[in-house]
Amino acid sequence: MKKALYAGSFDPITNGHFDIINRAAKQYERLVIGVISNPSKIPNFSIEDRKDMIRAVVGGLNNIEIDSFSGLLAEYVNQNQFDVVIRGLRAITDFEYEIQMAQMNAKLYENNVETIFLMTSPEYSFISSKMVKEVYDLGGNVDGLVPVEVLEIMKQKRRNSSR
Amino acid sequence: MKKALYAGSFDPITNGHFDIINRAAKQYERLVIGVISNPSKIPNFSIEDRKDMIRAVVGGLNNIEIDSFSGLLAEYVNQNQFDVVIRGLRAITDFEYEIQMAQMNAKLYENNVETIFLMTSPEYSFISSKMVKEVYDLGGNVDGLVPVEVLEIMKQKRRNSSR
Amino acid sequence: MKKALYAGSFDPITNGHFDIINRAAKQYERLVIGVISNPSKIPNFSIEDRKDMIRAVVGGLNNIEIDSFSGLLAEYVNQNQFDVVIRGLRAITDFEYEIQMAQMNAKLYENNVETIFLMTSPEYSFISSKMVKEVYDLGGNVDGLVPVEVLEIMKQKRRNSSR
Amino acid sequence: MKKALYAGSFDPITNGHFDIINRAAKQYERLVIGVISNPSKIPNFSIEDRKDMIRAVVGGLNNIEIDSFSGLLAEYVNQNQFDVVIRGLRAITDFEYEIQMAQMNAKLYENNVETIFLMTSPEYSFISSKMVKEVYDLGGNVDGLVPVEVLEIMKQKRRNSSR
Amino acid sequence: MKKALYAGSFDPITNGHFDIINRAAKQYERLVIGVISNPSKIPNFSIEDRKDMIRAVVGGLNNIEIDSFSGLLAEYVNQNQFDVVIRGLRAITDFEYEIQMAQMNAKLYENNVETIFLMTSPEYSFISSKMVKEVYDLGGNVDGLVPVEVLEIMKQKRRNSSR
Amino acid sequence: MKKALYAGSFDPITNGHFDIINRAAKQYERLVIGVISNPSKIPNFSIEDRKDMIRAVVGGLNNIEIDSFSGLLAEYVNQNQFDVVIRGLRAITDFEYEIQMAQMNAKLYENNVETIFLMTSPEYSFISSKMVKEVYDLGGNVDGLVPVEVLEIMKQKRRNSSR
Repeated sequence: MKKALYAGSFDPITNGHFDIINRAAKQYERLVIGVISNPSKIPNFSIEDRKDMIRAVVGGLNNIEIDSFSGLLAEYVNQNQFDVVIRGLRAITDFEYEIQMAQMNAKLYENNVETIFLMTSPEYSFISSKMVKEVYDLGGNVDGLVPVEVLEIMKQKRRNSSR
Repeated sequence: MKKALYAGSFDPITNGHFDIINRAAKQYERLVIGVISNPSKIPNFSIEDRKDMIRAVVGGLNNIEIDSFSGLLAEYVNQNQFDVVIRGLRAITDFEYEIQMAQMNAKLYENNVETIFLMTSPEYSFISSKMVKEVYDLGGNVDGLVPVEVLEIMKQKRRNSSR
Repeated sequence: MKKALYAGSFDPITNGHFDIINRAAKQYERLVIGVISNPSKIPNFSIEDRKDMIRAVVGGLNNIEIDSFSGLLAEYVNQNQFDVVIRGLRAITDFEYEIQMAQMNAKLYENNVETIFLMTSPEYSFISSKMVKEVYDLGGNVDGLVPVEVLEIMKQKRRNSSR
Repeated sequence: MKKALYAGSFDPITNGHFDIINRAAKQYERLVIGVISNPSKIPNFSIEDRKDMIRAVVGGLNNIEIDSFSGLLAEYVNQNQFDVVIRGLRAITDFEYEIQMAQMNAKLYENNVETIFLMTSPEYSFISSKMVKEVYDLGGNVDGLVPVEVLEIMKQKRRNSSR
Repeated sequence: MKKALYAGSFDPITNGHFDIINRAAKQYERLVIGVISNPSKIPNFSIEDRKDMIRAVVGGLNNIEIDSFSGLLAEYVNQNQFDVVIRGLRAITDFEYEIQMAQMNAKLYENNVETIFLMTSPEYSFISSKMVKEVYDLGGNVDGLVPVEVLEIMKQKRRNSSR
Repeated sequence: MKKALYAGSFDPITNGHFDIINRAAKQYERLVIGVISNPSKIPNFSIEDRKDMIRAVVGGLNNIEIDSFSGLLAEYVNQNQFDVVIRGLRAITDFEYEIQMAQMNAKLYENNVETIFLMTSPEYSFISSKMVKEVYDLGGNVDGLVPVEVLEIMKQKRRNSSR
């Protein structure tokens, strides 16, 4: 039974992420979505909000757990004995960074952990969390960029913060 | 009659930008140069200085207007009913970013606004505003990187600020 | 009134080409689709078949003409006094080739002909005529890769050639 | 139980291929190495020679089968009910081709077959079958580029053909 | 007699840098390693610490001097009459930045200073100072990424700072 | 005293090649221009014609020799005891191929031969021998793409062959 990790900031989760999650959940018996808490970056949404958003989106998928962690990815992978780390590839600049990360991590992983890449489907290849947040903050329309459940939570938070 | 937008920070306008402006002005009846005011970034020059620099450079071109805006590009485009948004392509990393922006914006534009790309001429392909400013601030020579009118204004500002 | 050229082998025309044609036809008063006849390459379909396929697909668009030519693109452009040459950009390797072609042609064009790039929509970015033909020849399904009118002609030709 | 395919020309199998096979064999219960027979390309080695070379190299791995096929990859995948198709990524130009193939095949695969990418280890990233054969044919030294078992077979064939 | 410069932040020096230094020292009679002091970036290690680390690593190489400078690279090059500036190329995104820098500097250099590129050996191509520092700060293992002499100094500094 | 090789097909030599030769001749005491004779490719010009063209162009440079060879580059390098092999970098796809070649050759070279890369100047970065020949054969104008001496020889050969 293979246990896979899909880690990221998910700040917020986009349709591109959800596409990868959906496909990874068919490939592995257990899939953990690991929300990275990076103290040196100011997030758009809190760890709890991000986990709530993911939970709202992946509700229908049985073999998924949602977790969060800080510190070194490789250490989290080793401690939790993952077999596989999943990455989505969107574009060339992604690719360069990903190949460097994968080769660095290969030196840090114990027990033959493998980095597995899935290509983002073409219709989602232009979506990034950063652009979604920029457009949303400037009042733009992000329909079709994030799952509807996430859009709902984003709108709620906007109403709350503007009170 | 087509109305085109060429938007950017122009902080400062370089010979590469001027090459694109020159060529775009031959393609479209009306060309608006839209200086983006991004409150989250500290500019080298104020919006007014940047518009003055552009005005000094494009003085001889009749069908050009100079404007500035803040907020979402797509909203500015929709409100002002542009037909076309022009982008210059310099290099591969540009290309990746540009393709993502173009596809994101295609979802936000109303009325079939089209993103049109022009290749920067090879002799200007290595110039970026960021490099120009770095070299200038460290006392280096930026002849041939920015139009002479801009160089003059940059020197004036340096004299004023050092008094 | 601007007269634009969209040139290519169109061997056969794909949904990706049709996407570019559709959008270019909204940008320019006259759009010529120029089928390139390259004597040093063995085509999948004859020039006449390729023009028939294009005609079947663009029937509903009024400002389009279909032509063919051999020899140097720049010479055809100069002789027919095009204002603009349109290119679709799909991917990085495209980009490299296109930037070299554009800069070479800029030296050969007379009268300020401009090369204009449109980004292929993401859902068509993985389609190439070569792959379409490979899949089709091996009996694979090319639904969704070429316009239905082209699929019909391809099937007819297959029936005829197998008699 | 997942059944995976690693397809290629393997003309000949290199250390880069073997690195991917080794790692893939740890990920999947069954791994089929599918040698592609492409009638329109003149191979360096016959299908049988290529299968012999692979057999000599992967002898110690239990869950591997060696097969060959011609025609459309997607059809072979569908008929043999693979769950996963494995691809090695070496470099940027690989990446471009691979993303196009993966997206094309996603339309042709039935039953959610997934394309899975592994990064070639950095020490093998510069090896291609084509370069190996070029160097070998010109009398150069290919130690360290192909497994020793393959080198032995290549030398034997050279002796035989020079008699 | 050629005098070459290899400039960088070396914050800290990695095995990738050392590979380039080793090979450059065989190519040029005099090689200066120039540590760049960039006041607008907060370094991991002080200029003196970085020079100490380099000294510890290149002790055995006779024709090497270690220096530091601030301000414009081109000015430092011109004032010290270097003949050659050496750069290591690791990856595509490096390449884009490097080609822009080289072409910018070509305008600033006097006396035909040439920028010379060496390819980083494949086993070091995934190492960057930034990743080394990230992994080290999160308590990860950087064996094999930096020379042993540097690792020793990093550990000493960690012990000192945690007292 | 360093002995450098700049090898290529030079079919024909372009302004881009000449730019690299000029700069390399300033860097090394002896520079050999090695014309590669590749029996499996049909050249545009014979080895002798290509050497004549190069001779006409580099006449003014004292430390240059012109040679030709067939077979493996690395063997020619080893037999002639070059210290350095020079390559010009024009573009991304170049870069990918060049990094693979350099790493392959590093395994084949004896005595620490180093591959040295120079960036083609931006105004020549779009020129390739293949494009020059295509344009020329179709009757196009190649002024500014090849040195005037080469243009003269190309015209002479055209006159002779059309008699």
